[in-house]
Amino acid sequence: MHKVIFDTDPGVDDALALLYLHRHPGIELRAVTTVFGNAAAHQTARNAAMFKHVWGFSAPVAMGAEGPLNPSRRNEDWPVAIHGQDGLGDIGLGQAGAAPLDPRPAHRLIVDEIRACPGEITLIAVGRMTNLALALQEAPDIAQKVRQVVLMGGAFGRHGNVTPAAEANIWGDPEAADAVFGAGWPVVAVGLDVTMQVVMTRAGLDALGVSGGTPARMVRDLSQGYVRFYEGLVPDGMVVHDACACVFVTDPQLFGTRRGAVRVLTEGIGAGMTVLRPEGIPFPPGAWDGIPVQTICDRVDAAGVLGRIAAVVASRG
Amino acid sequence: MHKVIFDTDPGVDDALALLYLHRHPGIELRAVTTVFGNAAAHQTARNAAMFKHVWGFSAPVAMGAEGPLNPSRRNEDWPVAIHGQDGLGDIGLGQAGAAPLDPRPAHRLIVDEIRACPGEITLIAVGRMTNLALALQEAPDIAQKVRQVVLMGGAFGRHGNVTPAAEANIWGDPEAADAVFGAGWPVVAVGLDVTMQVVMTRAGLDALGVSGGTPARMVRDLSQGYVRFYEGLVPDGMVVHDACACVFVTDPQLFGTRRGAVRVLTEGIGAGMTVLRPEGIPFPPGAWDGIPVQTICDRVDAAGVLGRIAAVVASRG
Repeated sequence: MHKVIFDTDPGVDDALALLYLHRHPGIELRAVTTVFGNAAAHQTARNAAMFKHVWGFSAPVAMGAEGPLNPSRRNEDWPVAIHGQDGLGDIGLGQAGAAPLDPRPAHRLIVDEIRACPGEITLIAVGRMTNLALALQEAPDIAQKVRQVVLMGGAFGRHGNVTPAAEANIWGDPEAADAVFGAGWPVVAVGLDVTMQVVMTRAGLDALGVSGGTPARMVRDLSQGYVRFYEGLVPDGMVVHDACACVFVTDPQLFGTRRGAVRVLTEGIGAGMTVLRPEGIPFPPGAWDGIPVQTICDRVDAAGVLGRIAAVVASRG
Repeated sequence: MHKVIFDTDPGVDDALALLYLHRHPGIELRAVTTVFGNAAAHQTARNAAMFKHVWGFSAPVAMGAEGPLNPSRRNEDWPVAIHGQDGLGDIGLGQAGAAPLDPRPAHRLIVDEIRACPGEITLIAVGRMTNLALALQEAPDIAQKVRQVVLMGGAFGRHGNVTPAAEANIWGDPEAADAVFGAGWPVVAVGLDVTMQVVMTRAGLDALGVSGGTPARMVRDLSQGYVRFYEGLVPDGMVVHDACACVFVTDPQLFGTRRGAVRVLTEGIGAGMTVLRPEGIPFPPGAWDGIPVQTICDRVDAAGVLGRIAAVVASRG
């Protein structure tokens, strides 16, 4: 059984990932923490609380950071062309009810849960890494107490998606991401190198809506604008970025990995770029020295990942 | 016939590249311009003038930049562990004679040659890009008059060699490299993505020394320390970075390429990193806008390249 905290910014692909975690028989969802990113912080918290209410899971939902660690970073525009004004495809889910939020800020809920179950919690982070960095600042001991941190973020051997250098989750708070990669906890980065290969077709999404019941139909419906956004970028369908990080937790054998120290660039036009120093290759002294070796994904069995998502979401618990 | 200006910092692998150009029946070597990098500027100029004297080529040799465009960049240490104190493996070539240098600074010789043969000059640059940037500053018209610019530099889908982010030639003067990629001339970057695959074995180097006569024996002898440096980094032998750029000019079919706008990072720990915005992929407005589309090499027939080098160097003109 994987005890999971899901740090998320729903977000269309976050919705599918959350349903995967909710439905997976091997996952015990302990907490959902939210962060700005695909929409504003109040919106992503509301969206997660809506899923809690409608899908009926018991894990607390706590709202997190409203902006990046470094307040001088320009407030970004929300990616409404991708996720809609409401972060969930603008299909009217604002009319659905929502569960109450946990009173704690997200990073404190993260700290409390990790301390309550030392050695057992897997932290899956699929938004900006701000909540994780705040948790580390407040309670450095959690680095030794978490089981692993699996994040959707970065681009290691290919171009980014927000800039040619940077992937959105890292770009949105590069200082936080650098702190997360540099902490003494085991991190696995599931970045664009693999997620861009995992494309759920329109037909696959429709099939999910049939097999997975009402919650899956909701995901299908709220994903339609996202699918349209990806027209011209991928052959047919939608890239299921965030679900890939969840499948890594349950089925790591579907991924190939490399290891090394990771720094995040924070200055100039490269801000948000993730740069790996591969393990075992010598370099002159430099900024990667003393940074823990982490794991990045560089290969994926995309059909295998899509098959797992379909099978888990179709199971009705 | 390719009319070539060779901008170089000999440099062990520069020596092999220069011999390739000198021996190739399809190359007319019009000028050799030198730059700081593998050793100090006076040393690389002296080394090139030594080859002119000993090998007997007629192209003028002109000394170029002594440091990067931005004078506030820290003076680097010369890579004596790779190229020796004298830049040529410390085998005593300081005792050999040297031809007189052209009185012009390197960048002016570049400008004069390109203007003298509009549309005909291929500029091969295998050191810091400083001379090229200075030539562009002094005479922007050369961008329209050069045939193409082929450079050894950059790392696009893999780690660098001076830092995890940066390849040495770009790292040594990132502002110059950014100007070169951003100019309206056609650039082909032959970077670590391909050069690290082109390893001349010790046996191959020895065979070259036998088949290629006295000049090739000199290259074999001055390369021994360089081969020792590469022990542990490549299976057996030496990476012939600079010669790859020369073989691209004569045998481009041995390389696979991609196209896109290239920016060089100049700030922070990523300085010297080359970042491609692949052609045809949409991005939000940003720092790659308005930059010409250039070509980078991402695949190579390494055996084919090594075969061409062996065949050309073995021919005695």
